[in-house]
Amino acid sequence: MSRIQKAACIGGGVIGGAWIARFALAGIDVKVFDPHPDAKRIIGEVLANAERAYGMLTTAPLPKKGDVTFCDSLEDAVRDADWIQESVPERLELKRGVLTQIDAAAQPAALIGSSTSGLMPTELQRDMRHPERLFVAHPYNPVYLLPLVELVGGEKTARSVLDDAKAKLVPIGMKGVIIKKEIEAFVGDRLLESVWREALWLIKDDICDTETLDDVIRYSFGMRWAQMGLFETYRIAGGEAGMRHFLAQFGPCLAWPWSKLTDVVDLDDALVEKISAQSDAQSGARGIRELERIRDQNLVGIMHALKAGDDGRGWGTGKILADFEKYLWQSAEKTETTVSATEPLRLLETRVNAAWVDYNGHMTEHRYLQLFGDTADALLRLVGVDMAYVEAGHSYYTVETHIRHLGEAKLGQGLYTTLQLLSSDRKRLHFFTRIHDQASGDLIATAEQLMLHVDSKAGKSVDAPADVQAKTAVIAEAHANLPMPDGAGRSVGQRKAQ
Amino acid sequence: MSRIQKAACIGGGVIGGAWIARFALAGIDVKVFDPHPDAKRIIGEVLANAERAYGMLTTAPLPKKGDVTFCDSLEDAVRDADWIQESVPERLELKRGVLTQIDAAAQPAALIGSSTSGLMPTELQRDMRHPERLFVAHPYNPVYLLPLVELVGGEKTARSVLDDAKAKLVPIGMKGVIIKKEIEAFVGDRLLESVWREALWLIKDDICDTETLDDVIRYSFGMRWAQMGLFETYRIAGGEAGMRHFLAQFGPCLAWPWSKLTDVVDLDDALVEKISAQSDAQSGARGIRELERIRDQNLVGIMHALKAGDDGRGWGTGKILADFEKYLWQSAEKTETTVSATEPLRLLETRVNAAWVDYNGHMTEHRYLQLFGDTADALLRLVGVDMAYVEAGHSYYTVETHIRHLGEAKLGQGLYTTLQLLSSDRKRLHFFTRIHDQASGDLIATAEQLMLHVDSKAGKSVDAPADVQAKTAVIAEAHANLPMPDGAGRSVGQRKAQ
Repeated sequence: MSRIQKAACIGGGVIGGAWIARFALAGIDVKVFDPHPDAKRIIGEVLANAERAYGMLTTAPLPKKGDVTFCDSLEDAVRDADWIQESVPERLELKRGVLTQIDAAAQPAALIGSSTSGLMPTELQRDMRHPERLFVAHPYNPVYLLPLVELVGGEKTARSVLDDAKAKLVPIGMKGVIIKKEIEAFVGDRLLESVWREALWLIKDDICDTETLDDVIRYSFGMRWAQMGLFETYRIAGGEAGMRHFLAQFGPCLAWPWSKLTDVVDLDDALVEKISAQSDAQSGARGIRELERIRDQNLVGIMHALKAGDDGRGWGTGKILADFEKYLWQSAEKTETTVSATEPLRLLETRVNAAWVDYNGHMTEHRYLQLFGDTADALLRLVGVDMAYVEAGHSYYTVETHIRHLGEAKLGQGLYTTLQLLSSDRKRLHFFTRIHDQASGDLIATAEQLMLHVDSKAGKSVDAPADVQAKTAVIAEAHANLPMPDGAGRSVGQRKAQ
Repeated sequence: MSRIQKAACIGGGVIGGAWIARFALAGIDVKVFDPHPDAKRIIGEVLANAERAYGMLTTAPLPKKGDVTFCDSLEDAVRDADWIQESVPERLELKRGVLTQIDAAAQPAALIGSSTSGLMPTELQRDMRHPERLFVAHPYNPVYLLPLVELVGGEKTARSVLDDAKAKLVPIGMKGVIIKKEIEAFVGDRLLESVWREALWLIKDDICDTETLDDVIRYSFGMRWAQMGLFETYRIAGGEAGMRHFLAQFGPCLAWPWSKLTDVVDLDDALVEKISAQSDAQSGARGIRELERIRDQNLVGIMHALKAGDDGRGWGTGKILADFEKYLWQSAEKTETTVSATEPLRLLETRVNAAWVDYNGHMTEHRYLQLFGDTADALLRLVGVDMAYVEAGHSYYTVETHIRHLGEAKLGQGLYTTLQLLSSDRKRLHFFTRIHDQASGDLIATAEQLMLHVDSKAGKSVDAPADVQAKTAVIAEAHANLPMPDGAGRSVGQRKAQ
């Protein structure tokens, strides 16, 4: 898989900072240049948000975080990079100057993406010596969670560069879409701008206030658009007759006065004040940081939900997340896991996310079993039972589980899990998993589990193949002399003394 | 709570059919008039979709489904109803005629909502004798899942009618928002129309194809809008400086050529053909029914995710779902649950939804524990440990759980759970839960669980209050002579013979 080796970020505001987070959390070293006095603080805040979000997003093994290095000059930052992302303020002359400076200092083969949300790449690349590798890579806030990157080439951009950029975004969990022709504002901001202009009229004309307008969006088409877009949704609305029927039915509306967009609203002081006051009434009870936190938790929850979409194959952003996790596991599988004879296998780290807690902020009961299950999956991958193995028709199924709760896990808490193999034979794996608090090491819950090797099509237990048994035996031997855990071999309510 | 007693639906297409489903699944009898020869078939299909979706949506106790009665005349349908919903085709003369006919036959106090997506209520109510109770109640497809209803009054509509309508939508799981002034297309379709017009230009001008445009939406702002709307999202973008800063920063864009909406696209045959062909390439591999099924599963999953939002308090559509479930539980608590001495308590029914299955279509391990937990919650409510009790600072916490898997649950499968109380004392509840297949009654999984009564603030176990103990004792006595379940009292891997 095509992969970014070293990244450089020029400009480190909210967008640049989130690009830095995307790169670093995918294990890529990033050099940063931003002369703004607050740059380090802003980038630090965005990185902290991103790390918290990733802790919730996945139990797949994130790589060691890439180094983030602040440089004293643009030239130092870009010199070794093979992907350079420009995120300076949205003024053509400024951007063109910065990009020309990057172009002069970078390796000729380095890709140069601009985060611009509206400027034309042909204008940006005008003065470059190697304009063929300049393209727009326009992301969406929060960049560390939303996968979209609009890739737009200018007149001198090489098509192969866009394809290369698209491929390189996959291992950092993003989705590049190539826009066929350059226009101001590309596709996403064209659509957003049209909604924005209409919305300003609705507020100005007192049809509704900002909270009502937001509710109209999030209780209706916002839900549809988180998983299917405009055309696929309307295709369904057309029913079995499909898109042609839909267009025939709704085409005439274009002639109706259903939009005020033949005129542009005057965003004067009175309208600014009106919108600001309504927004304060709507959202002012919560600070921006709290709203960000809620937003990120919601986005993570939606991605988790969509990862289960299409009968578990993944849909939309959930599919992007599943692909990202597949990549993370593939990378992790290449590294050797040390099997020790003195302690259990340490397998997972995660952070308790909002979708996992009840209204008391405590981790919900069944999420413990989810963590135990993810830990068992990690053991299985260690002995060769990975996705490909399961798709080929064999797997281990859980037969029994005994969970003991010894403490509580709370929202945001860091956790890690360990696994001790108690016994194994041709068909069975019998093991004991512990969930610990990351900071104190305190034991929070344990599970004793029994799994059977099965032919999943035939629906019956069969012997595991020799290589799986051999890999299991290595762990079993190492764990043979570990002390039997306190809670193992017990029934519900049975006292320790018995 | 203000509640609809009897509903009538005039017009039963996709929209009317989904209103029927909303009413019937909330336990309200519905009379239907639709002379279209396919009406029964279409309504039946929509109802089947809605029932499948509700089976996934909630484990809260849905009431007995309301009767759906097809009437031979409009007058018969509306005579006894206190909410009449008109969903006939979108032609002013037709709608006005039907509404005037409804007005003449209905009780004067009955509310009359029109599903129109664009016509002005003042125009619709012109010829009515009781125009004060006519309003627009504009829902969004799929109406049985998306909660939004735009409530719009005309010149003669009473404000109290809009407030009453808004209150009556809550117990059927919907969210009414009152639009301050009537305009064509109201708020939602104004916004949709602006996006639609811009999108048509983007396709016509070959900036991108329909699939790319859909991807741009669903991988970026669609995700944002499923949980926060336009203004709250932009408020965050403004950072600590808030909305005024955002407006100052982005206001100038209004003067830029970022929209083609000063002109209207000509939706001629060539453009219709282009869009249809691109849509076929994008979505044609799946039929409309499959896309509907995927969409509904995704929407359910998103609502589940958002129900966990705001640290478990519920956010957006998830909050609406939580409120709906609270209502369902309140209604169910009023009905007596029969405690039998010859069989365990039958507590929950549900359907395996897409968010619960792995890519093999089997229910994921931890979802079994979720069902066991929901069943335990139902027991707790029976003995007086409900939401209010827990919020007041006491609860039962699970200490131990022993799960045995005896079969598999698959996507869409109907399940029910039973619970047998094994023992109880001042602090402890020890019980055995079974998950059965709904059709065959086959046992799929069991759980033996031990719960402790706790003071959740102090974080220690305390005696349950006398009334909870008394209610528990009634069940314990009834269950005293039930045979001890096969799997109870066993440790992991222990054989039955032991």
